[in-house]
Amino acid sequence: MQPTLPSHIEGYGPVRPFSGAYGERPDAEGPGRRRGGRGKGAKLLPDLRTAIERCELRSGCTVSFHHHLRNGDGVLNQVMDELARLGLRDLTVAASSIFPVHAPLVEHIRGGVVTKIVTGYMTGPVADAVAAGMLANPAMMQTHGGRARSIESGEVGIDAAFIAAPAADCCGNLNGVDGPSACGSFGYPVVDAQCARHVVAVTNNLVPYPACPIAISQEHVDFIVRVGSIGDASQIVSGTTRPTGNPIGLQVAETAARVIDASGLLTDGFSFQTGAGGVSLAVASRLASHMAERGVRGSFGAGGITGMIVKMLEAGLFRSLLDVQCFDLEAVASFRRNSAHQMMSASMYANPWTRGAVVDQLDCMILGAAEIDLDFNVNVSTGTDGRIIGGSGGHSDTAAGAKLALVTTQLTAGRFAKIVRRVSTVTTPGETVDAVATEAGIAVNPRRDDLRERLAGAGLPVVPIEQLHEQACRLSGGVAAASAPRADERIVAVVQYRDGSVIDVIRRKPE
Amino acid sequence: MQPTLPSHIEGYGPVRPFSGAYGERPDAEGPGRRRGGRGKGAKLLPDLRTAIERCELRSGCTVSFHHHLRNGDGVLNQVMDELARLGLRDLTVAASSIFPVHAPLVEHIRGGVVTKIVTGYMTGPVADAVAAGMLANPAMMQTHGGRARSIESGEVGIDAAFIAAPAADCCGNLNGVDGPSACGSFGYPVVDAQCARHVVAVTNNLVPYPACPIAISQEHVDFIVRVGSIGDASQIVSGTTRPTGNPIGLQVAETAARVIDASGLLTDGFSFQTGAGGVSLAVASRLASHMAERGVRGSFGAGGITGMIVKMLEAGLFRSLLDVQCFDLEAVASFRRNSAHQMMSASMYANPWTRGAVVDQLDCMILGAAEIDLDFNVNVSTGTDGRIIGGSGGHSDTAAGAKLALVTTQLTAGRFAKIVRRVSTVTTPGETVDAVATEAGIAVNPRRDDLRERLAGAGLPVVPIEQLHEQACRLSGGVAAASAPRADERIVAVVQYRDGSVIDVIRRKPE
Repeated sequence: MQPTLPSHIEGYGPVRPFSGAYGERPDAEGPGRRRGGRGKGAKLLPDLRTAIERCELRSGCTVSFHHHLRNGDGVLNQVMDELARLGLRDLTVAASSIFPVHAPLVEHIRGGVVTKIVTGYMTGPVADAVAAGMLANPAMMQTHGGRARSIESGEVGIDAAFIAAPAADCCGNLNGVDGPSACGSFGYPVVDAQCARHVVAVTNNLVPYPACPIAISQEHVDFIVRVGSIGDASQIVSGTTRPTGNPIGLQVAETAARVIDASGLLTDGFSFQTGAGGVSLAVASRLASHMAERGVRGSFGAGGITGMIVKMLEAGLFRSLLDVQCFDLEAVASFRRNSAHQMMSASMYANPWTRGAVVDQLDCMILGAAEIDLDFNVNVSTGTDGRIIGGSGGHSDTAAGAKLALVTTQLTAGRFAKIVRRVSTVTTPGETVDAVATEAGIAVNPRRDDLRERLAGAGLPVVPIEQLHEQACRLSGGVAAASAPRADERIVAVVQYRDGSVIDVIRRKPE
Repeated sequence: MQPTLPSHIEGYGPVRPFSGAYGERPDAEGPGRRRGGRGKGAKLLPDLRTAIERCELRSGCTVSFHHHLRNGDGVLNQVMDELARLGLRDLTVAASSIFPVHAPLVEHIRGGVVTKIVTGYMTGPVADAVAAGMLANPAMMQTHGGRARSIESGEVGIDAAFIAAPAADCCGNLNGVDGPSACGSFGYPVVDAQCARHVVAVTNNLVPYPACPIAISQEHVDFIVRVGSIGDASQIVSGTTRPTGNPIGLQVAETAARVIDASGLLTDGFSFQTGAGGVSLAVASRLASHMAERGVRGSFGAGGITGMIVKMLEAGLFRSLLDVQCFDLEAVASFRRNSAHQMMSASMYANPWTRGAVVDQLDCMILGAAEIDLDFNVNVSTGTDGRIIGGSGGHSDTAAGAKLALVTTQLTAGRFAKIVRRVSTVTTPGETVDAVATEAGIAVNPRRDDLRERLAGAGLPVVPIEQLHEQACRLSGGVAAASAPRADERIVAVVQYRDGSVIDVIRRKPE
C-alpha cells in the first residue's frame, strides 16, 4: 500500500504496517479485544447446542443468567439441560437469582454437572438442595451490587452469559420491553454482557434490525439463538402487586410512614425505595398521601419498581424512576410509556466499587426481615428451620446507602419471634440499619441518636429494641429455633457482603 | 460480627472477613476497581483547577475530550489553559476531533505543554501547526472506530477524560439533550467515561438529580465542575444543513442516487449513511424520492445525523436512526422527540474489535474525498499543498463495513485534479471502496465486477477510473501538487487504520 513506511517512527514507536482492511485481528479475548463479525445473520445460530459449541464451553466453566423473567424463566433450565446432554460437568452457575422454577437444577447438582452456585437470591428446591448439603462446593451468596462488583473486578469470571431476551435483533441488540415475554427494565444482565468472555442472547422474539429501544447493544453480543419459549409469561411478573390487607401489617406500615414523615427527610428532592411485599406497598401508599398533603415533590423512586411507585411518578410525587427491574405489569407498561421511568444497570444501582451508586443517593429504604437482632443485624437468608429462604438481593446494598434504612416487621411470624437476640444468619450488618418499625413501636439503632430524638419529639412510640425482643418472645411463647443447624456442621453457603468480604456462613440444615 | 468465621472454607477459598460496612476499599484503580463516593454533592467541585488536582494529573499524562460541541467547544481550551497555568508539560491530548476553535492549543504546543495529539480529525490552526512540524511527537490520526478500539484495548490510556456536558446532575449522570448547549446524541465520550482513570464532567447546566434522560451514568463519573460556559451554542451544530445548489454537485448526486438504485440494495431493510456536506445531502434527497416511489422501507439511517435523514425517518423511509452525533438542530430536536432516533456509542458505531459494529450492517455509505487514486485509495487527510485538512473520522470505518462504499466527487477542485494517479495520503484503503461517482461517469473497483455489471446493465455510464483520471488531468491543466512534502521530510503525523496498524504517514509541510 505504502511501500516506504519506516519500521520505527521517533515519538510514535514501532510501526505495525497496514496489512489489509480485514486482515488484522485482536490477539486475545476480553474487553476491548473481542473478535468482531461482519455480515447480517452471522451471529444467528440454529440452537443452544451450536451456541455452546461456538463458545467453546468446557467442564469447569462458569455460565451466567439473569432473573428478569423471575419464576417464569425458561432459559436457565434449557441451557443447563443442553450443557448436561453435552456431557459437561463441574460447572459454576452464576445466576443473579434462582427461583422455584429452576428445580431441574437439583438433578444437575445431584449428578455433578453443577458443583458451584453464585447468586444474589435463591428460593425453592435449589435453595433446599443447597441447604441440605447437596452442592459439592459452598454456594456464594452475593448482594445485587456485590455481584456486579465481582464480575466487573474479575473476581467472578464468566465464560458465557446466556441472556434471556424478550426482544433481540440478528446482531444482538436487546431489550426487555417488546414481545410476549416483556419484563420491562433490563438492568441485571448489563454487567454480564460487558464482562463475559462470550455472550449469547436467547430469544423467542427476533425483531427486525435494529431493535428499538436498545437496552444492551450489539457490540457485546456474540450469538443469538431463537427458541420457542424463554419462559412462562404469566410468571414473569405479577399482574399487579397490592398493599397488604392484614390489620397488623397495616399498623406496621402506618408506623413506618410516620417514621419517614418525622425523619426530616420528607422534603423536596426526597428519594425512596421499597419492595413488592404487601407491607412495603402499604408504606408507599401511606407515604404517597403524606407527600401529596404536604406538597413534597420527590426526586426519584428506585429499585425494583411496582405499579404503586409508578402511580407516585404519574402523580408528580417523583420526578423520575430509576429501575433495575420491573416487579409487575404496571411497571412494565410505565417503563414503555414514561420517559422519566429510566433503566439502571445493577452496577449503577448498587455496585460499591463504582464512582457512586444510586443506593448512595437514597433517602429512605424500606427493608423486610426474617429476623432482626439486638444489634440490628438483619437476616433475610435463612429460616428458623435452617432453610435458605432468599438472600440479600439489594437488601444490604440499599441499607448501606440509604440515609434512613427502615426495617418493617411484625414481632412474630407463626410460632417464632422475629426480633431475636442473635440472628441465625447475618445478611445485612446492623451498623447499616437505622430503625425497625413494628406493631409495638419503633426501635432506633443507638448509632442514630439524632433520629431517635426526632421520632420521640414527634410523639412516635420509640422503644428499646430489647423491649420489642421481650414482647416478641412472650408472644411466640419463647419457642426456640430448636432445629437450627449445629455450629460444627458443614458450610453449605458463604454469605458475602457487598464488598466481597464474608459476613457469615450457612451450615447444613438438619435432616 | 460473626466471631467464628473460619479463615479458609473448602470449596470457597480464603475468607476475607467482614470488616465494617464502609471499611473495605478496592485496592487499585481501573475498571471494576474504582473508588466510590457517598453522599450527594461530594463530586461537585468548585472549579477545573480543583478537579485537576483531585485527578492527580502530572506532566506527561493524557487528557481526553469529545467533539459533540464541534467548533463551538469551549471545554478543551479551558482545561488546557488551566493545565498550563498549573505548570504541567509534555501532555497528550486525546480529542475525538479538533476544530478551528481550538486554536489556543497552538500556544500550548509551542510552549511544550502539549507534545502529542491523538485524534480522529483535525482542521484549522492546530492542524496547520502539526503540519508545520511544531508538535514534538507525530500526531496519531485515528478513525472514530479506531479511537474507541485503542481506548478500550488499553493502547491509548487516558488519565483524565473531560466531558463537556450539556446537562449533568450532582452525581454525574449526563446527557446531551438539555440546556443551552444541547448537542443531541452523546456517542463519542462513552468509551472515555468507561475507560479513563478519572472522569470529569464539565457543565454549564446542573440539573436536579437524577438527570433524565441519562446518556452516561454516574458510576463512571468522578467529578462535576460547573462552569459559566461550555462553548458557543451557535457553533455547536449548524442550524440546518442543506443540499448543494451547485449544478455539477447536483449531477454527481443524481448519479450516485442512480448507482444506489441500480445496486440491488434498495429493498426493504435498506440501510444508509451519509455526511452533512451539500452533495451528500443531495444524494439523500434523491434517494428519499426513489425510496418513496418504490415503497421501500429502510431499516436504519446511521452516523452523524442531519435533518435530511430525520425527514426520511419521519416519512417512514427508515424504521430507526442510529446516531453517534447530531449534525444540525433538526437532528437534535428529533433525538429528543423520536424514540426511534437512538444514540449509539463510538464503539457500537465503528469499533472493529467489538462483537460487531453498526458500520458492518450498512448497505450504503456515501463518502467524500479530497483525492481518490487509480487503486481507489481515498485521501481525506491532506490537501495538495500538504496541509492537514481533516482525517478519517468515520470514513475508513464505514467504507470497511458498508456493502456499497460509494465516493462522490467532482473531477477537479480549483486547479487540481481529484482523481489522481496516487493519493498524497492514504486515509481509506482502496480495497474498501466500491465505486466513485462523478459528473463524468462512474468508476467501479475491479474487485466489484458484480457491481459494474449491475450498473452497466441499468444503463449507467460506467467508465474505467483511468479515464476519469485523464479527464480530471485535462480539466485541471495537469497542475501537479508541486508544493507537496518531500519524501525525506520529518514525519509529523501517523495515519492509523482502524485496527491500529499504520496505513500512511504525513510529512512536514513545506514552508
